[in-house]
Amino acid sequence: MIDKLLIIGCGLIGSSILKKVCKKKIAKKIFVFEKSKKNQRTLKRLKLKFELMQRIDKKIAECDFIIICTPLSEYRKIFLACNKYSKKNILITDVGSAKKDTITRINKIKRKDINWISSHPIAGSEVSGPLNGNENLFINKWSVIIKQKKTQKKEMKKILKFWKLLGSKTVTMDADQHDKIFALTSHLPHLIAYNLILTATSFKSSNKNNILKFSAGGLRDFSRIAASNEIMWRDIFFNNKSNMLKVIDIFIKNLKMFKQDIKSNKKNLKTKLKNLKKIRQKIVLLKQDTSKPDFGRT
Amino acid sequence: MIDKLLIIGCGLIGSSILKKVCKKKIAKKIFVFEKSKKNQRTLKRLKLKFELMQRIDKKIAECDFIIICTPLSEYRKIFLACNKYSKKNILITDVGSAKKDTITRINKIKRKDINWISSHPIAGSEVSGPLNGNENLFINKWSVIIKQKKTQKKEMKKILKFWKLLGSKTVTMDADQHDKIFALTSHLPHLIAYNLILTATSFKSSNKNNILKFSAGGLRDFSRIAASNEIMWRDIFFNNKSNMLKVIDIFIKNLKMFKQDIKSNKKNLKTKLKNLKKIRQKIVLLKQDTSKPDFGRT
Repeated sequence: MIDKLLIIGCGLIGSSILKKVCKKKIAKKIFVFEKSKKNQRTLKRLKLKFELMQRIDKKIAECDFIIICTPLSEYRKIFLACNKYSKKNILITDVGSAKKDTITRINKIKRKDINWISSHPIAGSEVSGPLNGNENLFINKWSVIIKQKKTQKKEMKKILKFWKLLGSKTVTMDADQHDKIFALTSHLPHLIAYNLILTATSFKSSNKNNILKFSAGGLRDFSRIAASNEIMWRDIFFNNKSNMLKVIDIFIKNLKMFKQDIKSNKKNLKTKLKNLKKIRQKIVLLKQDTSKPDFGRT
Repeated sequence: MIDKLLIIGCGLIGSSILKKVCKKKIAKKIFVFEKSKKNQRTLKRLKLKFELMQRIDKKIAECDFIIICTPLSEYRKIFLACNKYSKKNILITDVGSAKKDTITRINKIKRKDINWISSHPIAGSEVSGPLNGNENLFINKWSVIIKQKKTQKKEMKKILKFWKLLGSKTVTMDADQHDKIFALTSHLPHLIAYNLILTATSFKSSNKNNILKFSAGGLRDFSRIAASNEIMWRDIFFNNKSNMLKVIDIFIKNLKMFKQDIKSNKKNLKTKLKNLKKIRQKIVLLKQDTSKPDFGRT
């Protein structure tokens, strides 16, 4: 399908794409750019057929399709290099988790003929790096593809096909809708997890040890989410700023109501909790999680 | 070890104890009181050797050891029945998650000769009921035993032995310390999970569907924790009120600082997230969770 593919950034997501592309022979030739020396060594040990690029430079001129799998703060540099070196009408996608501000920012500097259709595969883990890459990472997971006003149908088809070849289900939406949804389903949950770990551990050290020792009652699950890559998440929070600020305010407002319920032994707290419990069944019905009870991972 | 054991409340925890006690023949005779008709039917189908009590009444006089596995709001009624019917010097424990206020409240009405040593096994799940009971639920999990001023050594030994027979590791602490620790490791995390689900779903229905559909990016994990039993959790929040109110305030203060970090593109946010990530390794080292990456449960 693809003649010459370049994967820029080969951490968890990039290396998972690499493995699947190699396995399914989706590209005739694969270039990889990965700036971490440690990750480069890991990638070499994978014994996959690709060429490691040492710099993002004129080699780009050979590529037909680029997928950017770096934190959002790397995009500017990458697009400037593409402006300088890439073929006319090259197709670029990315896997970033925050879209609207990123697209506005990049569209201002991007060469007009470069076709950039942004993607967001809803797949990941608390672990990073190519050692954890998994060719099955995208199977049956949603990949959201961002529609812009000028998105060409032909190019959109290619992007949708690419994600389907990786095993994803695809859906298109605009950047604004994407950022509103993912502020609530992913960005706020991650910030809350970080904030819970901060709150639980901001005590004097004697208690801190006890808090970690007895963390199986709920805290450990948040610690997993709060173990995600810090550069990636800093960039997401900054690049979905306006939605983040809004949902934090709503979250605090709701939490203050819960506080009042507790303070006043509010009678209907039981019903409120019961209604929230029901959301779980809907998530399981939508196949976003399994109904299998979790007694803690061992 | 025990002559006549009574388990009051046979949901997830009570039925897990029942199964293990039967398997390991920890008691010569077992009585069970469970008020839900549905749970009673499930219990009968287990084909275990126990006698189902229809009421908490004079049968109590036969028992040597009682373990209360009901929500905290049932305790008053149960202790009043024990006052009326139980043997002198009977030994009672419970599995409630909030201690200080509960103990103060019950000590006021409890017959003085009744030996009550409160316990808290750190084991559970988002599922309830005897259908989910699991004889291995307590294996290698902590059980916290509450020391009071008047706790007798002999009785304490019996309680520690009981939990060890169920497979638990045991630790003793006072009620105040217990409630402070578990406010942070368990009670606040559960409230936060409920509040996150409330926040994510308090939007108009068109978006609500999308939010559940794309919940795999973090929200689904919170929905699992927010699927816990509503009566149990209402009671815990009410019975650890003063700690809950305090930790909610600290949580909000910390979240407002995160909001400010995001608003101002704060440079050190990366370091702050990186430091929080490290907590995960400590939790794994303490064997409170596994280091195995989670790519979503399937």
